Amino acid sequence: MLVVMQSQATEAQVRAVCEQIESLGFRAHPIPGEGRTAIGITGNSGTVDTGSLESMPGVVECIPVSKPYKLVSRDIKSDNTIVRIPTPCGEVTFGGKAIGIVAGTCAVETREQVFAIAERIRTAGGRLFRGGAFKPRTSPYSFQGLGEEGLKILAEVRERFGLGIVTEAVDDDSLDLVEKYADVIQLGARNMQNFSLLKRAGRARKPVLLKRGLAATLDEFLMAAEYVMSEGNYQVILCERGIRTFADHTRNTLDLSVIPAVQRLSHLPIIVDPSHGTGRRNKVLPLSRAAVAVGADGLLIEVHHDPSHALSDGPQSILPDEFDRLVREARDIAAIIGRTLN
Amino acid sequence: MLVVMQSQATEAQVRAVCEQIESLGFRAHPIPGEGRTAIGITGNSGTVDTGSLESMPGVVECIPVSKPYKLVSRDIKSDNTIVRIPTPCGEVTFGGKAIGIVAGTCAVETREQVFAIAERIRTAGGRLFRGGAFKPRTSPYSFQGLGEEGLKILAEVRERFGLGIVTEAVDDDSLDLVEKYADVIQLGARNMQNFSLLKRAGRARKPVLLKRGLAATLDEFLMAAEYVMSEGNYQVILCERGIRTFADHTRNTLDLSVIPAVQRLSHLPIIVDPSHGTGRRNKVLPLSRAAVAVGADGLLIEVHHDPSHALSDGPQSILPDEFDRLVREARDIAAIIGRTLN
Amino acid sequence: MLVVMQSQATEAQVRAVCEQIESLGFRAHPIPGEGRTAIGITGNSGTVDTGSLESMPGVVECIPVSKPYKLVSRDIKSDNTIVRIPTPCGEVTFGGKAIGIVAGTCAVETREQVFAIAERIRTAGGRLFRGGAFKPRTSPYSFQGLGEEGLKILAEVRERFGLGIVTEAVDDDSLDLVEKYADVIQLGARNMQNFSLLKRAGRARKPVLLKRGLAATLDEFLMAAEYVMSEGNYQVILCERGIRTFADHTRNTLDLSVIPAVQRLSHLPIIVDPSHGTGRRNKVLPLSRAAVAVGADGLLIEVHHDPSHALSDGPQSILPDEFDRLVREARDIAAIIGRTLN
Amino acid sequence: MLVVMQSQATEAQVRAVCEQIESLGFRAHPIPGEGRTAIGITGNSGTVDTGSLESMPGVVECIPVSKPYKLVSRDIKSDNTIVRIPTPCGEVTFGGKAIGIVAGTCAVETREQVFAIAERIRTAGGRLFRGGAFKPRTSPYSFQGLGEEGLKILAEVRERFGLGIVTEAVDDDSLDLVEKYADVIQLGARNMQNFSLLKRAGRARKPVLLKRGLAATLDEFLMAAEYVMSEGNYQVILCERGIRTFADHTRNTLDLSVIPAVQRLSHLPIIVDPSHGTGRRNKVLPLSRAAVAVGADGLLIEVHHDPSHALSDGPQSILPDEFDRLVREARDIAAIIGRTLN
Repeated sequence: MLVVMQSQATEAQVRAVCEQIESLGFRAHPIPGEGRTAIGITGNSGTVDTGSLESMPGVVECIPVSKPYKLVSRDIKSDNTIVRIPTPCGEVTFGGKAIGIVAGTCAVETREQVFAIAERIRTAGGRLFRGGAFKPRTSPYSFQGLGEEGLKILAEVRERFGLGIVTEAVDDDSLDLVEKYADVIQLGARNMQNFSLLKRAGRARKPVLLKRGLAATLDEFLMAAEYVMSEGNYQVILCERGIRTFADHTRNTLDLSVIPAVQRLSHLPIIVDPSHGTGRRNKVLPLSRAAVAVGADGLLIEVHHDPSHALSDGPQSILPDEFDRLVREARDIAAIIGRTLN
Repeated sequence: MLVVMQSQATEAQVRAVCEQIESLGFRAHPIPGEGRTAIGITGNSGTVDTGSLESMPGVVECIPVSKPYKLVSRDIKSDNTIVRIPTPCGEVTFGGKAIGIVAGTCAVETREQVFAIAERIRTAGGRLFRGGAFKPRTSPYSFQGLGEEGLKILAEVRERFGLGIVTEAVDDDSLDLVEKYADVIQLGARNMQNFSLLKRAGRARKPVLLKRGLAATLDEFLMAAEYVMSEGNYQVILCERGIRTFADHTRNTLDLSVIPAVQRLSHLPIIVDPSHGTGRRNKVLPLSRAAVAVGADGLLIEVHHDPSHALSDGPQSILPDEFDRLVREARDIAAIIGRTLN
Repeated sequence: MLVVMQSQATEAQVRAVCEQIESLGFRAHPIPGEGRTAIGITGNSGTVDTGSLESMPGVVECIPVSKPYKLVSRDIKSDNTIVRIPTPCGEVTFGGKAIGIVAGTCAVETREQVFAIAERIRTAGGRLFRGGAFKPRTSPYSFQGLGEEGLKILAEVRERFGLGIVTEAVDDDSLDLVEKYADVIQLGARNMQNFSLLKRAGRARKPVLLKRGLAATLDEFLMAAEYVMSEGNYQVILCERGIRTFADHTRNTLDLSVIPAVQRLSHLPIIVDPSHGTGRRNKVLPLSRAAVAVGADGLLIEVHHDPSHALSDGPQSILPDEFDRLVREARDIAAIIGRTLN
Repeated sequence: MLVVMQSQATEAQVRAVCEQIESLGFRAHPIPGEGRTAIGITGNSGTVDTGSLESMPGVVECIPVSKPYKLVSRDIKSDNTIVRIPTPCGEVTFGGKAIGIVAGTCAVETREQVFAIAERIRTAGGRLFRGGAFKPRTSPYSFQGLGEEGLKILAEVRERFGLGIVTEAVDDDSLDLVEKYADVIQLGARNMQNFSLLKRAGRARKPVLLKRGLAATLDEFLMAAEYVMSEGNYQVILCERGIRTFADHTRNTLDLSVIPAVQRLSHLPIIVDPSHGTGRRNKVLPLSRAAVAVGADGLLIEVHHDPSHALSDGPQSILPDEFDRLVREARDIAAIIGRTLN
């Protein structure tokens, strides 16, 4: 924490601020500059709540310095975490040299629908299947998913096609079920700061795929992962899926710069979901290429063989043929930056 | 839903889009304009997922028209909902002529702290006390609240000072407890789209105070209330508490224009939280005045007798003397627009 | 500027950063904390461009500390600047105890239209008239204003009704004309960082009304005023008119918290434009009340006697009767916080 | 324009709205739905200013439908515009199969500096050099560029190294000079809605590189280009350079999804500036790769041989060696999507 004083602040005011800092149990380090004095605060293990400082005479503002995260940080662990997902058709890793692709349908609707898509994904070389059995929908009147019924269909997909299963949990009950049936527990953007659910996921024995909230800063995103890790589950895959901005040509604004930013600060893998990130079918392929080019550790893609009849998120699902092309181009771009496809 | 065609779209393209609409079970209404044709879609009870339309030759874009909410809407109920909170010191209402003020501390820390603040609030004429026993904190290492212990202290506050209690629930377990101990169940901004929790609150027998999410549009905010109401709980108070923008002079940007916007579309009461909305003590008083002046049905204010030693959100708590002034000025401004203070 | 080091940064890395700082001509002040070391930089009169520091081994980030503005700051002048506008019907001030109201039409269309509105504004007690002769329009095919012809009509308004004139300049040529015909030179949001125009306005002999850009931070807004003042014109009135956010229920999001924030840092007066700030007629009155309640030094309001036939911005113009009510309520709210109406 | 009525709107209210629409000179097309009626408006060549409609009894809202741009649109010209820049070392094109790279320094400081960088860029295969002689700086006290002196140095760069010159104009005077000395006239993000300057650029005989404003929607961006084209200059290159959002890990949020969105609506070429778009050296290379992968028609890159001593924007300039690598990787990625490097 750094306290910035006004340029005309008196010595007495600076002293008073230092005394207040010391009275709160910290140490004060005044740094006299040409124009004004700044006062560094040390000895604080957590965040200093310094409303009292900001209200003192002569103070301009308080600037936080320390980052609050620990376990997610490269300060603690400098080499990349590699999350390993065993699937019947082989191990998929996130965070190593190989890029992982998760593909599938937004919502599990029927066995026929899911099987049709899963078959195409397996043929294209995919090894991880996504499908929602519990759907967080903006409207209570929209299709909310098949629940455990849907999870059972996904379990059949694993058995029949050899694909590992990634699916979302939305509360404690569904997380119990997802942990039982699936290979990766997905936590959605709207639950990124559902701290109870994060803690429950932190006690799970399966890897967690954590999506960035629509208004989450980088720090908040990493702190959400910290919640999971603080309960003992270190297998966390982060996922950028678009943030909310004024721009209206896509449903969200995909923030690809967060990929190198996360990789600089954290050892956790981070993947990109261009389907939700753009909400438009015709932007999924170009932004998938861009995600691989920027250095993402994986992709999360919605595929549908008949998107015009999908019960949710049809407009952002690509067709199986487009997915084939996506895999091909992703592989070629990965090679340019010394990476491979899982 | 309205489908906008390109200006050079052929008749055949327009016809194909109309046929696709009909094949999805809706009716198509082509409106030929000077420059281009638009096609209205009717017969849809819910949202049309029209990715297929947007991908058809000649289509520029699809524009949603119908609003997805029902129970929250003035379409269903044109007169204001008045939420009534019985407290030992009299009934408090939200949504009528009288404005309601909820005041208290961010977190319940100790009996002494809470009693000291509650006494000052009661003296200032307050009748509803807020205090957090379950705290959703960005960091897992920050103080997370006293839990049921805190709720018991709040129950003592009701008994001793006659104040009604407003406190936050963060998951099903805490909601069970909050429903038992408190008078109003608060749902925080980070849980505004925690649909499981919304549904659980919809089955509660106590009024719900629902805060707007940091990135929630007006429609999403109303749909969150719709989730609560769709389960049978019609006692919902909305609360604006700041949205996330690029502006960095306050912690959030308080969006006061949402007050008249909500009041135009919905019959539910809406209040303002300038403490979280600004995150700065010195902005709470002016923005409380503004909230009353804009027509809000109430205020949610953090007060602390010793904010520099508060365990959470000290920087945005005002002192009891400032609260006295706030109540005075709120009452005077309310009178100008024909309203009173509860 | 403060350089934050990684927690595992070596002593040698800290020393190297300090040496680099000194080699750039500044002084380095290492502050060793429990977790990590931060290094303060002093001796910099302007901004330090420290890309080189951020790229050095062991560095997490660089945090700017000093504010770049001088003349706009309360550091330089602690008491409020009062901008005085002489008009035929008396002096209007901004920044003192009295609140100033500027009212009028978005665009000057015809003498009849302007006279009709001006008469109503004068009757309501107004003393400053706004009307655009040069209109910055998003589309080149929209009405661009009458130019000097419009300014002449405005000059007639001054003569006939005694109203002072506020009107926008969009480039050097129009600024020459506006300076000649009007009493206050308005610079629009889209030109807030048109630095050439700001400098030209800084050489003008008339007060400047400077609108906040749609994406301007508080610092950038104040720096734009600094540009005007740095050329010698100290008569600057700031104006909040809404910022661009994701919220779609108003055209822009009016950021009323910027009023107390500006007043804390700067001695310049700041007013509010709820007409552009919301873009909706039905929100102008409530947000005008809120602006006065929050402490704004004035209002800028669009009034039109026949808004459905206005050539620009009809949807946000209020009717003369609504303006009467606005003035009445503004006066009453002003009284509550110890202020008056000009 | 579409007017949406309340579900309980009476027939008389619908009729009244239709009559009002007709009285404004347009045609009304009521579309009765299950829940409510919507009314289409045709016959409007420009935008309908419909504040009067929105205030009528029974109206929920007015939704604009028609796009206001013409010349920039694929409606007018379906095949790509190819902007051709002749340079001493060969023609560079934007908008065709080949991708163009513009590289250079943010500000022209000295002949030595510019020559050193230009030489490296030429060696790396570059054919277009960027350098600022007129610098729009947030602070009036920051280095504002060398002016015509700087343009003369750039002209020497063309002569000596054979590079075409791209440089920014900030007002009419500088545009006159830039048109004389340079090959491409750059208009900066802060001037994207400086309509006077856009019109002046529209009368220039050199191609215009137009940067997206920090808060510009896609429509506003295209309308800015429409201003240039409406004056007769059809040689416009668009440039995405980051938008302003809440995200704070980069200076701006680079919105790569705008590339396919522009290409869908407009025939104009669009390039990406990852240097300003991120403001961080270590993100320029990954986001340059992403820009090529997403389908951009070119890149605008800041290179500096000694960025720690640059007078402006040092933190975002890459070193010449990094630029070599960038060109190499851009070429390889371009090949994957069937494109080449100019």
